[in-house]
This record gives sequence, C-alpha cells and structure tokens, in this order.
Amino acid sequence: PVNSDRLWGTILETAAFGATPKGGVRRLTLSQEDRKVRDWFKAACEAAGCTVTVDALGNMFALRPGRDPSRAPIGLGSHLDTQPTGGKFDGILGTLAALEVVRTLNDAGIETEAPLCVANWTNEEGSRFAPAMMGSAAFVGDFTVENILGRKDAEGVTVKEALEAIGYVGAAPVGSQPFEAFVELHIEQGPILEAENKTIGVVEHGQGIVWYDGHITGFESHAGSTPMPLRRDALATFSQIVLAVEAIARKHGPDAVGTVGEVTIANPSRNVIPGEVNFTCEFRSPHAEILKALEADFAAAVTEIAAGRKGVTVEIEQVWRKDPTHFDPKVIGAIREAAEGLGYSNRPMVSGAGHDAFNLATRMPVAMIFVSCKDGLSHNELEDATQADCTAGANVLLHTVLSLAGV
Amino acid sequence: PVNSDRLWGTILETAAFGATPKGGVRRLTLSQEDRKVRDWFKAACEAAGCTVTVDALGNMFALRPGRDPSRAPIGLGSHLDTQPTGGKFDGILGTLAALEVVRTLNDAGIETEAPLCVANWTNEEGSRFAPAMMGSAAFVGDFTVENILGRKDAEGVTVKEALEAIGYVGAAPVGSQPFEAFVELHIEQGPILEAENKTIGVVEHGQGIVWYDGHITGFESHAGSTPMPLRRDALATFSQIVLAVEAIARKHGPDAVGTVGEVTIANPSRNVIPGEVNFTCEFRSPHAEILKALEADFAAAVTEIAAGRKGVTVEIEQVWRKDPTHFDPKVIGAIREAAEGLGYSNRPMVSGAGHDAFNLATRMPVAMIFVSCKDGLSHNELEDATQADCTAGANVLLHTVLSLAGV
Ligand SMILES: NC(=O)NCCC(=O)O
Ligand SMILES: NC(=O)NCCC(=O)O
Repeated sequence: PVNSDRLWGTILETAAFGATPKGGVRRLTLSQEDRKVRDWFKAACEAAGCTVTVDALGNMFALRPGRDPSRAPIGLGSHLDTQPTGGKFDGILGTLAALEVVRTLNDAGIETEAPLCVANWTNEEGSRFAPAMMGSAAFVGDFTVENILGRKDAEGVTVKEALEAIGYVGAAPVGSQPFEAFVELHIEQGPILEAENKTIGVVEHGQGIVWYDGHITGFESHAGSTPMPLRRDALATFSQIVLAVEAIARKHGPDAVGTVGEVTIANPSRNVIPGEVNFTCEFRSPHAEILKALEADFAAAVTEIAAGRKGVTVEIEQVWRKDPTHFDPKVIGAIREAAEGLGYSNRPMVSGAGHDAFNLATRMPVAMIFVSCKDGLSHNELEDATQADCTAGANVLLHTVLSLAGV
Repeated sequence: PVNSDRLWGTILETAAFGATPKGGVRRLTLSQEDRKVRDWFKAACEAAGCTVTVDALGNMFALRPGRDPSRAPIGLGSHLDTQPTGGKFDGILGTLAALEVVRTLNDAGIETEAPLCVANWTNEEGSRFAPAMMGSAAFVGDFTVENILGRKDAEGVTVKEALEAIGYVGAAPVGSQPFEAFVELHIEQGPILEAENKTIGVVEHGQGIVWYDGHITGFESHAGSTPMPLRRDALATFSQIVLAVEAIARKHGPDAVGTVGEVTIANPSRNVIPGEVNFTCEFRSPHAEILKALEADFAAAVTEIAAGRKGVTVEIEQVWRKDPTHFDPKVIGAIREAAEGLGYSNRPMVSGAGHDAFNLATRMPVAMIFVSCKDGLSHNELEDATQADCTAGANVLLHTVLSLAGV
C-alpha cells in the first residue's frame, strides 16, 4: 500500500500555493501560483529519481525507467491548476497520488517492466483559457500548438505570454511523449459514491461537452426616458437565453446539464439600458444523441428569442465540442480487479466532469478511478475528501499501474 | 439673442475632455477628465467676470452680481459629468448655455436686478457613485455631507478621496449658496419634441425614481457534474428577476419604465454554476401611485422568484427613492412666455430622466427647458443635437432668466 500520511501531507503542503480564506485554492493555470506548484512538483519528482521533461505547452512528464526499455511507459497523473475558487483535490489528488505511487515503489525497491510516466497537464480547468483539458487536447492533436499558444485570457494575455512569464515553455515537442496506456485518479465531483457508500468508482464513460461564446448587440439608451416598447435591451435578451438553457437541459434530463457561467455588460451603468452583453454557455450529456439534441434545441431557442427582440442580434459561436468518451475495457478491467483485490467496494461510473483522460482516450487505452468527495461538491472552495478515500484511490492506482506495467 | 457660434464652440471644445472614438464623451464624475473640464469652466466663468466658489462636495457656483444685492441670485446651469459612454450634450448644454447667457449679458452691457449664479452640480449621472443628482441632493439636505462623502465607487474609492484627488473639496458649506429660483436647460433625452417637430419643451413634471441594489446567493458547483435539480444557480435566479422587471414595467405602461443596468458574478468561470450575483435595478413613473405599484409588484415578484428557487436567497435594498417632481407655475410660465416671445414652437412636457432641478424644486421655484435630441437618444456616444436647437434653448434660458431676475 501507499504511504497514506505522506500522500495526505503533499496535498496539504501544495494547497498553500494559492490558498483561499475558506480553505480552497485559487491557482489559475500558468499563474505565479501555478509556477510555484510546478517548481515544487518538478523537484519532488526529481528527488524520487525521475527525469522531468516539459513540452512546448508546459505539460510536464516525470519518467521512471522500467526493466524493458522497448516498452512505452504507463502514464498516470492529472493536473495541478484549479478553478478561481477551487478546492484542494480536483486534479491535485490524481497528480500527487501518481507521485506517491513512484515513491512507494522506490521504498519497496520495485522495478516495473514498462517504464512509468507521471503527467501534470496544462490548463485542465479551462477557466483562464478555453477550452478545458487544453494541454492534453493539443497533445493528442485536437488543436495545433500555434492555435493554443494564441488563445487569450480575459485580460488579453496569450497562452504563449503566460507560459513565458512563468518559465514553462519546454523543449519537448507537444505529443512527443509516448504512452502505452494512461490511468487517471480523480475525485468524483458528484454525489453517487457517497450516496451508495462505495469506495471506488470504475469510470467507463465520460460526458460529451459543447462550449459556446455568446455576443448580444442591442442599443445603449437612457433608462429613464426610453419607453419600454422602444428598447433594444441586450441584458433582457440574455436573461431569456439563460432560462432557455436551463429549460432545455431539464427537458433532456436526467442525462443532460446546461449552464451559463459568465456574463459581462460592456460599459455598465445603473441608468443605461445594456447595449452589449458577452457570455459563455455549455451543455453536457453522456449520450451522443442527447448532446446533439441539446445543440439543436439551443440553436432554435436562440433564433426564436432573437426574433422576438426587435433590433437585438445574438451571435453564438461553438468554441469547443467533445463527443462522449468510452474508456478502454482492458484498463477498466485492471482498475476493477485492483479494487476487488484490495477489498474496496466499487461500481462502474460515468464521469460528469471532463478530464484529460477523455482526450488521451482517443489515442491510447485509458480509464479512470474515482473516489468520493463530500456532498459531491467541486469547483467550490469547500470541496472536500477524506484521507481514507484518497489513500484507497492511490492504492487502486498503484495496483492498476503495476498490473499494466508488469513486475 | 445669445452668440450661437460661441456656444457651439464651447460644446465642441469641452467635448475633448474625455472624448471617445465614436464621438461621445467618457467623463465620469470626479475623474481626471472631470477635473480638466472643471478647471476650464472655472477659468471661463472668471474671465466672464464671475466669482467662483466651490462647496465641500465640489458643487461649483459662478456669481454675477446684480443691481439689487438684497435679492438672492437666479440660478441657472446643470452638470458637466457624463455616463461611461455618454454624449456631448447631456448636462453640458445646460451648463455651457448658462455661461453663454452671462457672456451675452456682458457683451450687451446688461446688469440684472437680481444677481445670477451659474451652477455645475457634482455627480448628476450616478454611474460612478449612487445616487444620481448627488451634489444637488445633498445641497437641499436629502442626504448629509458625511453620508455622501463615504459613498464608494466600484473600485472602493470614496467620494471624499475622489474629491481630494482632483482638488475640488471647496471651502463653502454644502447648501449655503442662496437661490431665488433655478432654471435648467437640458436635451430632452426622449423622442417627443422631434416627433412633433417642436423646438422647446416646457417641463412641468419629472418622473419619480426608485433605485435598488440586489444581491443573490446560491451555491458554486461544477457545471458538468451537478444535476439540474440540485443546482442553486444565482444567475438563473437573476435572469428571472430581469424578465420580471421588464414585465412589471410593461404592465404599468406607458407611464412606467424598469431597467436592470448592471450585473456581476463573483468568481465567474465557464464551468462553475454561479453562486453569487450582484446587480442594480430601477423603476420610474411620472405618477406617484404607479411608482408605488411598481415597488410593490417588484417586492412581490422577488419574493415569489426566491421561493421558487430552493437554496437561493435574494436580498434587495432600496438605495434611492424620489417621488415625482412638480415644477413651479411661475417659472414654468416665464419659460413659456420666453419661448412664445421668441417665436419658438413649444409644448408642456414630463421629464423621463432625472435632473438636479428635481432636487432643487423641493426648496425653491424651479422649472426646466428641453430641446430636441436626435432620435431621442441619450446615455449613448451617438447622442446628438443641432446647433439651432441648442441656440434656441439658450435663448429661452436667457429670456427666462432676464424675466425672473429683472432688468
Ligand atoms: N475535472 C474538472 O473539473 N475538469 C474541468 C473541466 C470541466 O469538466 O469543465
Ligand atoms: N439627465 C440624466 O441623464 N440624468 C441621469 C440621472 C438619471 O436620470 O438616471
């Protein structure tokens, strides 16, 4: 088994990089806090005998050699960036548990057949730069490196500038690191394991995702002297869209969600009718047909809402689309056997959140391990998980990796 | 008559202080741009022989002596601050036309019986600090000076700090400047004069106004893994409120308007359900009973919306309330006679926008002169008015002031 206290200690230690008042973490990708945790992670991996390489998008790979140099390494890991008001576990557990697997093997003097490669992917969260799972998406070729380097955050800073600012433009070409298979451990970020009192989720599928950017153009005018029938109110139009997103997701429920997470008014003022509104929007479903139906319903709703608002135009751009993910039966089987062998209660699961594993699954055998988090809560400073569950997940990760790599 | 080209020249000249790309003005109250136009205005008034005093809230008063020192001055003027994307005329016309009245009287060598006092009121717009018409509200005692000095803008800067930063904390106590009566010239900011092809609006009433600050507390959670029925979405709740504001105003139309002008999500992120939303909201009507009905309907709608959103709370604070204004029959008569005497077509009007004149009307005889603006448009960079209409308004201002002051 892994060293539970050592694993827990690294979670608490790294939570200091971007700690928030309510016990969460604010460590936006490629920020100075991200640089600090990356420096810490690099030093820890090197101290554990790994060779660390960084690619041109800041993806980090810590290699532990195996007995058979002809085999590509078994990958394990996740991400160390967080939401603006994120928790201590989302991504972090999977990355630090991967480090803990290496440390445990070192302590036990175990050499695996295949090498191991611990990964920390850049910008999994997608808050500062879209899309989410950005580093792994470029890794598998869903986007070119140039495309990703040019993407901007809300302040207009590009990925390229942000990488340079923290010194994480690596020499390795993106996508050059080989993997034989990949295993990602993560907190569930949903309520099912807790509700059913199960320790391990064996993740077989992942939801499909569509992300949109929306832009509404009405006309600024005086809030006191512009009669209601003459208004071209961009914010009232936006409000109809928000409620339509909610209604569409409910209509296709329970296997659908829809969210508007961001909105800004250009030149806001109390006594000015909003003339320009920008927003983001997303839908998800584990079923490809439902995802398509959500997209179609959304397009129809936007057209209808805009048609009902004279003098207001609504532009919608789909900025990201990812079909539902199906993980590899062999890796799924290895995870289930590891959980069973260790005596942990377990069940098959669908992932509600997106993960780097989704992207990697288009190129190699992949599956994921989930452990419970308190109240199913994530993307919140109050996100929580127990030391026992984190340790169980790390143990399943260890034994899955051992079975895939061979000893 | 006034010197039309000189008046027009001052409008174009001062529009340079905060000029925007689309031909508008961004001159938020107590900003550096505001300081520049204030310095210009002070110098111009002194060059026209006036004595300029500034009170503790930055309200500016330029005194032109009269023949009868026992009479309080006839006041004229408006404001020089603008909306974030405002125009060249809103407030500015009334202030610079008042200066032009003084210059015209100087040119003609006319001494009035009562003295004249040209005023530039601080923060009429209410965009940077609430409420609107702030300087004149404190002048008539609606708020204490201490209360106003402590009010903060979105960056947390207080009125006191902003006044100090531009050097406009004056020595005169707020409210100490006497007035016998007050006349304010302004663009209509609405479509009626243009539609009816009338030159002068004789403003008899002003709309009542209520302003609110709203705060919605839901709960941040993951946009992908939180099922629709478990969400506590502050932004969806907000959207219902926006549409309720619109529906309530329409229900009480045509003599009612309602607007949500500002919204911000705390810690916004594409893939986080918004947990905290702040917004502003206002209603107006020229009828006291309708204003009360709007307030009651809004309170009821908020209660009902919040009740339908489990785990979401909505707090609403009324931050400003002003009953409809009724101007003084004598000053209204003087304006109508001046317009008739000059041969300008005219009609009685209700003001849709708020004005410093509304506040002053609680303490002295007051009325307003309106001139047409293009498409009724205001609080927009494209706000426009013709030189001929501005000149007509200034002429009516001149003759009204002469009749009130006596020659
Ligand atoms: N695991 C996780 O929260 N990923 C963020 C990307 C997303 O699912 O929105
Ligand atoms: N005249 C004018 O636009 N005043 C601003 C205050 C308001 O009416 O909202």
